[in-house]
Amino acid sequence: MEVSVYSVYTEVAERDIRDRSVVVIDLLRATSTIVNSIVNGAHKVIPVAEVSEAVAVLRTLDRREAVLCGEREGVPLPGFDLGNSPADYTRERIAGKTVVITTTNGTSALHAVRNAPNIFLGALSNRRAVAKKLIEEGRDVCLVCAGTLGRFSADDIYCAGGIVDALRSLGAAVILNDLGIVAEHLYVTQKPDYPLIRSTFHYSKLKKLGFEADLDFCFTEDTTDVVPQCRGGIIE
Amino acid sequence: MEVSVYSVYTEVAERDIRDRSVVVIDLLRATSTIVNSIVNGAHKVIPVAEVSEAVAVLRTLDRREAVLCGEREGVPLPGFDLGNSPADYTRERIAGKTVVITTTNGTSALHAVRNAPNIFLGALSNRRAVAKKLIEEGRDVCLVCAGTLGRFSADDIYCAGGIVDALRSLGAAVILNDLGIVAEHLYVTQKPDYPLIRSTFHYSKLKKLGFEADLDFCFTEDTTDVVPQCRGGIIE
Repeated sequence: MEVSVYSVYTEVAERDIRDRSVVVIDLLRATSTIVNSIVNGAHKVIPVAEVSEAVAVLRTLDRREAVLCGEREGVPLPGFDLGNSPADYTRERIAGKTVVITTTNGTSALHAVRNAPNIFLGALSNRRAVAKKLIEEGRDVCLVCAGTLGRFSADDIYCAGGIVDALRSLGAAVILNDLGIVAEHLYVTQKPDYPLIRSTFHYSKLKKLGFEADLDFCFTEDTTDVVPQCRGGIIE
Repeated sequence: MEVSVYSVYTEVAERDIRDRSVVVIDLLRATSTIVNSIVNGAHKVIPVAEVSEAVAVLRTLDRREAVLCGEREGVPLPGFDLGNSPADYTRERIAGKTVVITTTNGTSALHAVRNAPNIFLGALSNRRAVAKKLIEEGRDVCLVCAGTLGRFSADDIYCAGGIVDALRSLGAAVILNDLGIVAEHLYVTQKPDYPLIRSTFHYSKLKKLGFEADLDFCFTEDTTDVVPQCRGGIIE
């Protein structure tokens, strides 16, 4: 099984994803939050890039059955129900509802790979479940990191390495591209306490903004078997 | 000193290199070969992307004082004096001459950063010398990897990590971007035998093509104090 890791979705060409299963990774915090939404019974998740789009999508829904989610630089948005903290997406708040969430990097990454035959959402919380699903599907794989502001983000790479590690534990014969080799090495040498990741850009920024509980949540591994899938821009 | 590593030159924006010293790295084999050319007394090196450009540049020079260099997929080019094997660039062959060399990734990388105040060429052979030069210059730094066919190439990242390591050994207070942190980690955990790099794409390919001696040459560290500089597309 060929497994190619990309540090930013902008590097991915159409030919790279043709006939492949794609996993989009935006560990801090979009995919961690979206996985937890589905775990806690959200009917579906609609990711959008901009606040204005979120509001527009919300108008098409029954307000009582929708949850409007997102924040900017750690600041809650006026009129929004939830921020981006995954643990806030409790069963009480979102079960049976449509979650409309603003996530710039994550939405752009999902859009960039929209023509792939399968698009899954990956995080550390569903690392092993994603690996199982990829093996079941039997296709070659692209692990597409969302990155941070269009740049290489070490947390996403660590998560990609975690998925590679899970594929190997499950017996897959994995053939990696160069970034895949580096990602697996980063994961294997940094787990379980990932000291190096703690000094990287996005991790440090969220810590400074007071989101330490979110960081712990996002780095907790293998807590669910749920593997959300994205079809036509909607995640279920 | 801020040190940002980029995996491919296409990721580098003008604002990233403004006021910074830039080091272009194309370990296998362009920058290793060009450094060795200057070490062995080449008057100057003119890097070009295409074979047709190399021939055009050669026409402007006295043929007796020029050396035409390059190859494609390990195959020597008709009418060319040398391939891309750094050890072939001996003093006997190139001292006092102008080296015209075709290197697609390396030339594109040098072109992409042409507006930086300083552009140096880095390899493992001049790793420590590059670090010294960067400290003398006193600017923030961009280490720009050429990559392989527009993609992340682990050998270049290992070399960038080696330069970061040398900066630290020389006492620089280095502040890294995420890829810089990963590059340094890769270098420190893989030196001196770089087992992981041996399984990566470009390394394996050159090994299969029979260039094992070149690989050993390119991975030998700190053999020279020469730091070639590029100005107006000419390296001296």
